[in-house]
Amino acid sequence: MTERDYADAAAFRAELRLFLRRAEEAAREHGLTPRQHILLLMIAGAERQSSTVSGLVERLQLTQSAVTELVQRAEDAGFVTRTPSPTDGRVVDLRLTEEGERRLALVHDALGPERHQLKLLVERLDL
Amino acid sequence: MTERDYADAAAFRAELRLFLRRAEEAAREHGLTPRQHILLLMIAGAERQSSTVSGLVERLQLTQSAVTELVQRAEDAGFVTRTPSPTDGRVVDLRLTEEGERRLALVHDALGPERHQLKLLVERLDL
Repeated sequence: MTERDYADAAAFRAELRLFLRRAEEAAREHGLTPRQHILLLMIAGAERQSSTVSGLVERLQLTQSAVTELVQRAEDAGFVTRTPSPTDGRVVDLRLTEEGERRLALVHDALGPERHQLKLLVERLDL
Repeated sequence: MTERDYADAAAFRAELRLFLRRAEEAAREHGLTPRQHILLLMIAGAERQSSTVSGLVERLQLTQSAVTELVQRAEDAGFVTRTPSPTDGRVVDLRLTEEGERRLALVHDALGPERHQLKLLVERLDL
């Protein structure tokens, strides 16, 4: 068997776990579940800051029904609104409410140093 | 509120979810649970390719009891061995068995292109 060096891959996964844990903590500190945070980020980060349920299924790696439930709860909590798409009436566009935008911005800013640190680490590692 | 651009952060988290999902699939294809894969990686990637339970608690972001159980199962499955540390008899050194090394190498190699793609993406993004 070839001698492999796992140090870099291990450092990457350890740092990633730390990052994901901090991201979960930051979400909770601002009254979002970790999944709600990711949902809001995916909507705000999509083209024209809006997304459809099918678009989210792809990006979130969740099932259609899991995304539908997640969106429903975020709508109930006042973070997301649904409006019929102007280009296709059968499709619903999801957007952030002002409150959804406010919370996403708080979590996003709190995580700025962690994102930057993870990027610097990944650049240094042989992956 | 300042206009923020979430596209890069969203692309990063989407790619990360895809990477983690593929890593889980690769682990299962080679008869490891996702957590066992990470456990083997952390041991093999540690200094002198050995680790203690306390070292793993830190790197895995899991509780002492979760790590202890994970190690016990990996030992039962024949992937990990425990030997008293040569420098401190109260401490147990964890190492991979030949079978543990073999499975880790298979998963690691299968994920090579995914790790590389994630690194290239992170280098390109403004995080």
